[in-house]
Amino acid sequence: MNERIERLRGEMGKLGIDAYVVADADPHSSEYPAPHWKTRSWLSGFTGSNGTLVVTPGAESHGEARLWTDGRYYIQAEGQLAGSGVTLMRGGEPGVPDYIEWLADISKGKKWKIGVDGKTTSCSAYDALNKALAGENIIVTGHDLISQIWADGRPDVPAGKIFCHDIKYAGKHASAKIDEVRAALRGKGADCALIAGLEDVAWLYNIRGSDMPLLPVVYACAFVSPDSAELYIDREKTDDGVVSYLAGQGIHVRAPGDLQTRLEGLKTGGRICCDPKKTSVELRRYIPDGVEVVYAAEPTIMLKAIKNEAEIRGHREAQIWDGAAMARFMIWIEKKAESGEAFTEWDASKELTRLRALSPESRGDSFNTIAGYGPNGAMMHYGPSESKSALIKNAGFMVVDSGGQYPGGTTDVTRTIVFGRTTPEERSDYTLTLKSHIALASARFLYGAAGSHIDSIARKVMWDHGLDYKCGTGHGIGCYLSVHEGPQSVSMRTQGGERLEPDMIISIEPGVYREGKHGVRIENLVRITDDFTNEFGRFLHFETLTFVPICLEGVEKDMLDGGEREWLNAYHRDVYEKISPLLDGYERAWLKNATRAI
Amino acid sequence: MNERIERLRGEMGKLGIDAYVVADADPHSSEYPAPHWKTRSWLSGFTGSNGTLVVTPGAESHGEARLWTDGRYYIQAEGQLAGSGVTLMRGGEPGVPDYIEWLADISKGKKWKIGVDGKTTSCSAYDALNKALAGENIIVTGHDLISQIWADGRPDVPAGKIFCHDIKYAGKHASAKIDEVRAALRGKGADCALIAGLEDVAWLYNIRGSDMPLLPVVYACAFVSPDSAELYIDREKTDDGVVSYLAGQGIHVRAPGDLQTRLEGLKTGGRICCDPKKTSVELRRYIPDGVEVVYAAEPTIMLKAIKNEAEIRGHREAQIWDGAAMARFMIWIEKKAESGEAFTEWDASKELTRLRALSPESRGDSFNTIAGYGPNGAMMHYGPSESKSALIKNAGFMVVDSGGQYPGGTTDVTRTIVFGRTTPEERSDYTLTLKSHIALASARFLYGAAGSHIDSIARKVMWDHGLDYKCGTGHGIGCYLSVHEGPQSVSMRTQGGERLEPDMIISIEPGVYREGKHGVRIENLVRITDDFTNEFGRFLHFETLTFVPICLEGVEKDMLDGGEREWLNAYHRDVYEKISPLLDGYERAWLKNATRAI
Repeated sequence: MNERIERLRGEMGKLGIDAYVVADADPHSSEYPAPHWKTRSWLSGFTGSNGTLVVTPGAESHGEARLWTDGRYYIQAEGQLAGSGVTLMRGGEPGVPDYIEWLADISKGKKWKIGVDGKTTSCSAYDALNKALAGENIIVTGHDLISQIWADGRPDVPAGKIFCHDIKYAGKHASAKIDEVRAALRGKGADCALIAGLEDVAWLYNIRGSDMPLLPVVYACAFVSPDSAELYIDREKTDDGVVSYLAGQGIHVRAPGDLQTRLEGLKTGGRICCDPKKTSVELRRYIPDGVEVVYAAEPTIMLKAIKNEAEIRGHREAQIWDGAAMARFMIWIEKKAESGEAFTEWDASKELTRLRALSPESRGDSFNTIAGYGPNGAMMHYGPSESKSALIKNAGFMVVDSGGQYPGGTTDVTRTIVFGRTTPEERSDYTLTLKSHIALASARFLYGAAGSHIDSIARKVMWDHGLDYKCGTGHGIGCYLSVHEGPQSVSMRTQGGERLEPDMIISIEPGVYREGKHGVRIENLVRITDDFTNEFGRFLHFETLTFVPICLEGVEKDMLDGGEREWLNAYHRDVYEKISPLLDGYERAWLKNATRAI
Repeated sequence: MNERIERLRGEMGKLGIDAYVVADADPHSSEYPAPHWKTRSWLSGFTGSNGTLVVTPGAESHGEARLWTDGRYYIQAEGQLAGSGVTLMRGGEPGVPDYIEWLADISKGKKWKIGVDGKTTSCSAYDALNKALAGENIIVTGHDLISQIWADGRPDVPAGKIFCHDIKYAGKHASAKIDEVRAALRGKGADCALIAGLEDVAWLYNIRGSDMPLLPVVYACAFVSPDSAELYIDREKTDDGVVSYLAGQGIHVRAPGDLQTRLEGLKTGGRICCDPKKTSVELRRYIPDGVEVVYAAEPTIMLKAIKNEAEIRGHREAQIWDGAAMARFMIWIEKKAESGEAFTEWDASKELTRLRALSPESRGDSFNTIAGYGPNGAMMHYGPSESKSALIKNAGFMVVDSGGQYPGGTTDVTRTIVFGRTTPEERSDYTLTLKSHIALASARFLYGAAGSHIDSIARKVMWDHGLDYKCGTGHGIGCYLSVHEGPQSVSMRTQGGERLEPDMIISIEPGVYREGKHGVRIENLVRITDDFTNEFGRFLHFETLTFVPICLEGVEKDMLDGGEREWLNAYHRDVYEKISPLLDGYERAWLKNATRAI
């Protein structure tokens, strides 16, 4: 039995709530919420990144607690939920209803009162729930029951200081970006916009924060109208320097509580843009009835996705530091393996973090390193921990997926480290992953294509061999922001999606994942850029931005054709040229060998 | 000045209509309406397959007549509209509003009465117009002004006889299909369905007709409820045999006029399925207010798209007859060219129709043959006519895109015929088209992929060489029905779209189109089928259904790799094996050479 859930049931009973829905969601529906908002993890014990918990009253009234998650987390959830009385719902499996369908089914004809916390529930999530359930039930959003029962040991709301994002790297002052947002709003016939997405607020106002260890966003909201730009943030998080920069850009700093008054004061007949996936129901509730809500992705989304010259320059600079750290890491691994000394995935992950941090420009890791040795490499989202980490032996692969934050950009790179003996199947999987990577990295494609249209250029190599990877081929990335950034996505899952534009940055990361055996992934970041325009159209291609050696020890040379070998050799020449100036003599000699032509 | 448009303005004046919208649309929004409904063609003189005409009152009140069409038809429309006073609107060009935007703009603040014929306007078309214009204007749907002014010489409403589609080819009785539709309706929570799409009515009830020369559909509507299946059709089109088959299947034949009563009699609280792209506004108007309309594609669409065993067997049989006709045609062309005798695209097209008709199983062509010699081949939708047809010379290419109707299936095949001398560019374009075709025809892909996901497998070959074709790579096709059938489509234009299912049939038809120079297209039909399932997923691939030699004279052998040559040789072996039994000695010897291994 789970004592926390029992306490929640106590609170539900007081208010006559028949079902309460809890997710790890912050007021901005962030991909990575701060620990304060990991309410579902705290309540259920399941800590995976995707999960929704639904609790109904105690056992005497056939009460239940059910947790929905996806295939990546079945095994972890089973372990963490064991003995808790929480039933695991395997989302995505045939015949398993989603939580809304399940709620609709059990509440049928009962006129239930169903509760969600409106402060942390997005309009999209609420509207879906409401559409399916409101006919028969009442959805209440005003009760934050978790705060009633979780006081002891609850992490604070982040209160980190904010700072200015250097204009050298931003490339454009906040005032100019605000004007671009205003133009975008005019295009949509809207008067103003509430911007709740944390990456969007940070990008728009050229601010970064320290609320989170890996992601330099700031817990804050923005509001932009033709004659005003506002930042709603706790005063303690700012200092004179930031306030003075913001004032100079025409941005008014206000207390978070003032946002309610601001929204309530909107004039009848007006039109306000909101991203339904980012805006909470509570904020929407403040908008007066006579004001039309225009639902659209944040007006900043495309402006942020298409990098400007300074952002690209800063990103390139970041990649050089990152490449040097990765080269040193590969040297460390090689020496470690040769020494015969025992070491684990966790040791490797810690060493990589240390080597990245050595660079004076480092702002830390951009996400928790995935270092999966042997069968662990087959789990796409595996991460070692101090207490649970495999010992590395002198055979097979370790997938290392990691990245750094730099003032100029955010990096994300995966290399598969090859140890000693490998099997023909391992080498074949490694080489196919490389071929798949090269197929897309060297592709030319027509302007107008979305990521879903070009995904099969990489995936075909796998399909030809009866293989597939159960994830997208690539994602967008921020500049000194999040490692996952939309709207672009190279994936078969997205139905269509946004077209790929020059100066967007995406990852290319095909892989092979053999359960219980090994994983392979090779990931670089690339920039979309014009190739040429002729009578048949405008053609785009990619510029590779990541400069890290690709372990040649895994390559089955005969499986590469002439063009593929040429790509690999040219790439390695570039790696040496870009990275060697940062290395000492020994490191340089190592890199020379690691990037040798084959 | 256009006297017909003036008469229309006279009628508009009587009713106080400020703008009238006319398209070539029948009451079922068919892709190919019968001549009776080609009202826009008659009124404007422009006969292309896509066009919308908007007429406002006479010149004294700044009246206008504007015609919107797309890029395929700019040149034709310019010619046909010259001197008519009708302004051509180049739809799709930057800055050119569509007809709804244009109407919204000119009617602003004027409270116009805008007319469309509700009998031939789909719910989708009407709803789009209404959404954009109804705030300021009134849309009236009750006036069929064309019938007021077009009596003399107007083709009759088609009154062809209907007949049963042989169960040997249908593979499933109408009663069983109706039960499948009922199950589909239950899945959507609907009580009944109005089925207005002509291909869907014909498929569901196993009937075919002779209302149109190339397309064996029947002008009729179907209505299906849990306890009734009805066919609304003119009694004169039926005979005792058909009526008795239908009665045996539980289908009630009713007069078209009875449909109004049927719909008006639907019970309050009910839910009726309608395809908004197929159902006319007039029919929807009959549905009582208390009945909910569930908008969805026809409930038959997936049942029809996934062919059953008998349909596949019938299609394979049709392909053999078709392949023999095509082989004879290619022999005829070759002899004609060798003889030095002058002949035209039109002669070739007539001969092909004659040769197809020789087969006892032939039910005529499935569409008007496209036979484009030289620069005409670069126009994707070019068709020669008796009065306008290029002379074929002893050099270059002719694109021949044609198909036949057979009781077992509908065919669609394109071959590029190679005459005498060819340039290196021509041979390169030809070979790239073949490579692009082979890339997709031999591809393996994951179940779950939609056509938009695999389109780039063919297109990448073109992109690699700085080429692209401005059309989809493939489309679905009916069984003794239409050459274009959804929902599947292999195209970059569709955003996502329907997943590809085993036993769907699609075309693969990449090409190169060099304006003013030449065109190349190589098209086969293929069936989607299971390849294998392993730990990585379920894999599909294609079975080629078309058996017609691919002219080897255009092939630049060095541009093909080993796998491509193998595909081509294996394909040609199959062509010979399947088709030669139907040919005489001379023809067989010709085919042996035409399908020789390279």
